[in-house]
Amino acid sequence: MTDILSRRDLQFLLHEWLDVGRLAGRDRFDGQSPQDWDDVLDLAAQIAADRFAPHNRKADANEPTVGEDGRVVLIPEVAEALEVFNETGLIAASMDQEVGGMGLPYTVTAGIFSWLHAANVGTAAYQMLTAGAANLLISQGSPEQIETWVEPMLEGRFYGTMCLSETQAGSSLADIATKAVPQGDGSYRLFGSKMWISAGEHELGENIVHLVLAKVPGAPAGSRGISLFVVPRLLLDEDGGIGERNDVSLAGINHKMGFRGTVNTVLGFGEGEHRPGGEAGAIGYLVGEENKGLAGMFHMMNEARIGVGLGAGAIGYTAYLKAVRYARERPQGRPLADGKDQTTPQVPIIEHADVKRMLLAQKSYVEGALALNLYCAGLVDEQASAPEEAERDRAGLLLEILTPIAKSWPSQWCLEANSLAIQVHGGYGYAREYDVEQHYRDNRLNAIHEGTHGIQAMDLLGRKVTMKGGAAFGALYETVAATVARAGEAGGEAAELGERLERSLARLAEVTGILWADRDPEVALPNATVYLEAAGHVVIAWAWLEQFLAAAGEEGDFYDGKRQAARYFFRFELPRTGPQLDLLASLDDTTRAMEDAWF
Amino acid sequence: MTDILSRRDLQFLLHEWLDVGRLAGRDRFDGQSPQDWDDVLDLAAQIAADRFAPHNRKADANEPTVGEDGRVVLIPEVAEALEVFNETGLIAASMDQEVGGMGLPYTVTAGIFSWLHAANVGTAAYQMLTAGAANLLISQGSPEQIETWVEPMLEGRFYGTMCLSETQAGSSLADIATKAVPQGDGSYRLFGSKMWISAGEHELGENIVHLVLAKVPGAPAGSRGISLFVVPRLLLDEDGGIGERNDVSLAGINHKMGFRGTVNTVLGFGEGEHRPGGEAGAIGYLVGEENKGLAGMFHMMNEARIGVGLGAGAIGYTAYLKAVRYARERPQGRPLADGKDQTTPQVPIIEHADVKRMLLAQKSYVEGALALNLYCAGLVDEQASAPEEAERDRAGLLLEILTPIAKSWPSQWCLEANSLAIQVHGGYGYAREYDVEQHYRDNRLNAIHEGTHGIQAMDLLGRKVTMKGGAAFGALYETVAATVARAGEAGGEAAELGERLERSLARLAEVTGILWADRDPEVALPNATVYLEAAGHVVIAWAWLEQFLAAAGEEGDFYDGKRQAARYFFRFELPRTGPQLDLLASLDDTTRAMEDAWF
Repeated sequence: MTDILSRRDLQFLLHEWLDVGRLAGRDRFDGQSPQDWDDVLDLAAQIAADRFAPHNRKADANEPTVGEDGRVVLIPEVAEALEVFNETGLIAASMDQEVGGMGLPYTVTAGIFSWLHAANVGTAAYQMLTAGAANLLISQGSPEQIETWVEPMLEGRFYGTMCLSETQAGSSLADIATKAVPQGDGSYRLFGSKMWISAGEHELGENIVHLVLAKVPGAPAGSRGISLFVVPRLLLDEDGGIGERNDVSLAGINHKMGFRGTVNTVLGFGEGEHRPGGEAGAIGYLVGEENKGLAGMFHMMNEARIGVGLGAGAIGYTAYLKAVRYARERPQGRPLADGKDQTTPQVPIIEHADVKRMLLAQKSYVEGALALNLYCAGLVDEQASAPEEAERDRAGLLLEILTPIAKSWPSQWCLEANSLAIQVHGGYGYAREYDVEQHYRDNRLNAIHEGTHGIQAMDLLGRKVTMKGGAAFGALYETVAATVARAGEAGGEAAELGERLERSLARLAEVTGILWADRDPEVALPNATVYLEAAGHVVIAWAWLEQFLAAAGEEGDFYDGKRQAARYFFRFELPRTGPQLDLLASLDDTTRAMEDAWF
Repeated sequence: MTDILSRRDLQFLLHEWLDVGRLAGRDRFDGQSPQDWDDVLDLAAQIAADRFAPHNRKADANEPTVGEDGRVVLIPEVAEALEVFNETGLIAASMDQEVGGMGLPYTVTAGIFSWLHAANVGTAAYQMLTAGAANLLISQGSPEQIETWVEPMLEGRFYGTMCLSETQAGSSLADIATKAVPQGDGSYRLFGSKMWISAGEHELGENIVHLVLAKVPGAPAGSRGISLFVVPRLLLDEDGGIGERNDVSLAGINHKMGFRGTVNTVLGFGEGEHRPGGEAGAIGYLVGEENKGLAGMFHMMNEARIGVGLGAGAIGYTAYLKAVRYARERPQGRPLADGKDQTTPQVPIIEHADVKRMLLAQKSYVEGALALNLYCAGLVDEQASAPEEAERDRAGLLLEILTPIAKSWPSQWCLEANSLAIQVHGGYGYAREYDVEQHYRDNRLNAIHEGTHGIQAMDLLGRKVTMKGGAAFGALYETVAATVARAGEAGGEAAELGERLERSLARLAEVTGILWADRDPEVALPNATVYLEAAGHVVIAWAWLEQFLAAAGEEGDFYDGKRQAARYFFRFELPRTGPQLDLLASLDDTTRAMEDAWF
């Protein structure tokens, strides 16, 4: 079980650092205690180890296929694991009790889902997507829609999907072409094709609830003309029972580098393969208002993106733990101090400085990523439950500006952690007989879905930094500065780390001002990705200083490890931002000036 | 064909930069002309496109299996491609004419093999390994051994392998345990198991020539007691015909993340599965002297490692070209200048600054890597053919110090190029229906085999930098300084780039002195990998300044592209070395101080 995630680290982050117990006294979490939350986390850890981890490699090696009857075939362990998970009710961990949820803090839920992601992201995705779809309906749907669709999802009877992308519209949702034609009875018929739909077709539950973006005829061009629909795979009878097949068809399966346990599909809507009521067209039900679909979707985007960051961090974490174990068990080579004496026994490779470097780097990436994402989850809780409006607003601002970093940073650096885990294993790391190469392949998706790295960069520098007159950036600045001040009061090494972070923060703020001095996106944004990466390292350095402070005065291996990982990050990683911020400050136009014909 | 490598770039590097034509007048290449070399390169490009590239994905999707008869099964296209290649005689491109080779410059050979690597590294590996084994025998074997084993290898009848690693001895060859027992008749019987043997068993030719490291009973401990043996899969009759099966058995196949077209095996020697002469034990023939096997092997190490660097660069190159094509063809999104007007048509993604950044980064990595490796190949030619001894010595020194960089830098950064190629493709890049995810998986091996990244770092900082009183480092310093001087004479932008490179070079030299000031490996080496990476970026910046100078005064898209890629590297990449060298200068002990129990 220790190879999945560290229960000890989660305890440290949730209790010793984030003080999740503070939430117990609030109305929203009335009747809950920190002990309840720990019990739920223990349960998640147990299920992850017993039901999810054991078939992770098997699901990768036996990816979904389409049988002769046109049905999607998964290995049986997927359904068995999900059944056990569904019985716990944990899918609804953070949802309101009034819709059938457990009403737990999102911080705790993030811990739960991290265990599942780390154990088996391919199987966990079926429930993550269902939870995401349910949350969107809870947020945007009518009471009747919630009752009809969400309740069976939370009971594990229905599964969910998000149908956004189309072949010609990936990152640019404004260009989707799927049509939704009103039928006069309040329902719509949908016609179009959706690409990259995870869990788009399978036999796991009684039904699949597709949430589909489409355009109603005559709607405004672009993203202002997008509406959101519920399109079930199977229609419901008047009494809510499973009825006839809707006109949603499986056009094909995509074959991926990793994340293979999750079936990824091309879906056809309204192709006439099934003809509900004798007519072609997939019957759909509008969620919210016409043309407001994208706004509704964006409402849930922060949590979805934090979910990706959590997943990326979790995959990095499990591979790190496996690399540590391998490095302890694998004898190879001898210490430098022994010189050329090859008659001595080989030592475990964890004794070599370069292996320690690779493990420390992984530790600093994966624990830093988990810390940031749990902090962001805590902001979701603050936004929903803080007693003072000012606190709720501040949490909201921080969440806005941190989300692109919480999504992108783990996707980049916990992938690098996976690569280092392979490297620690040497040739074995490249072999499919070991786990780490799969983690690397699985994790590579996270910089692509839910908005690519480049899209996150535009979101951060183009929207979040400038929003509300810079209020979100200001909230971030103040948060980091407050930590620096606490470090200064602590004195000693903490103060020294704080001074380094303060310089990086000041430079980030200065460069942000330089980039937007002319208020011209063409000047500010060409190197947005470099900005995203520099800001990400500053934020993770902050997360490490916070952990360093939370460990202050504590003794023992665990705390020594936290301190050393913080030192590593400040010495080896934070300095990377220097040249990045210098480049940005120069308003470098190398990429803009490059011409197509020169490649 | 343009998606494999750029013939135009190769022409620029070989002729306009490296002036390969200078070799035509030398004794070693008597009777050859630059036109001959271009013709051979054209031929290699044609075979790569017609025979190697078409089955690259198929070989990945249908990896080698073991049939019921115990034979390794490959897809038929592998043998067909190799047959065509063998007919050209190009496997012996750079070998001496007296052993059946073509005697071409190694620079040209490197170009040939780059085409094959880029088109299909899995199939090309069978010939690369054979060429490597043949070269080792040519260098270390007796005339009789060369006649017996090398000639059929160059005719494409026999294939070769290198059997170094064992399960308990990967990076630490000193610890191999395979035994070679003298039989009194000049032959030996080998007993042991070898791990990670590429092309260790297959039916491609008439025989497989294993070159095996083993220890003779009573040999000195460690690497001083290692001998090298020829161990054929099938023994030869007295008249040289194929005889009985030797006692070499296939113990298993390793299943890899990538590089799947090349069968990777565990081989058993002397397990009694076959009993030549009625007895267990694999019959082997000593190459060179007893206990000198590792020295002999290291003699060929530079070329083998440059070969890995070439392969890594070639895989990066082909994915880059595919990413450029995709970016030109794929419409998505709109220019920043158009603001939020979504009624305009989408533009090809190559028009977005961030996509140009990703393509420029790839271009700077893959063309930089190819340049460095071709330069190193040129050093091999200089070492073998320069008229003056001083020139040959200087080439040898440069080759020693550049080899770990030429091997590691492309393995790291052309893998990053592959990752960026995936990113340019978005979701499609993660799908196996496109090529780039395979290139990424294939390339991940290159930082592991032929000495891991960490081993290269120890080689560079621990051996090469200090060898012969720092003479190799001095030769590198002078080479870079001479380029800086030429850039200064050219003036303008070249001079400006030269000044930046000069500062980085001076800092590298200074830091090298600091690291070794106490002559204590325990102080100098813990962050050797950081040194390798910083030195690598300085060297590649030099390769870009050289290309910038070679393009001086030339007009047209091709040269504009070279200039812009050079600018990109100096602005976005070279500055990374600043914090790395600062860290090294501080003699940072973070990794050394880390303790096992703290992880």
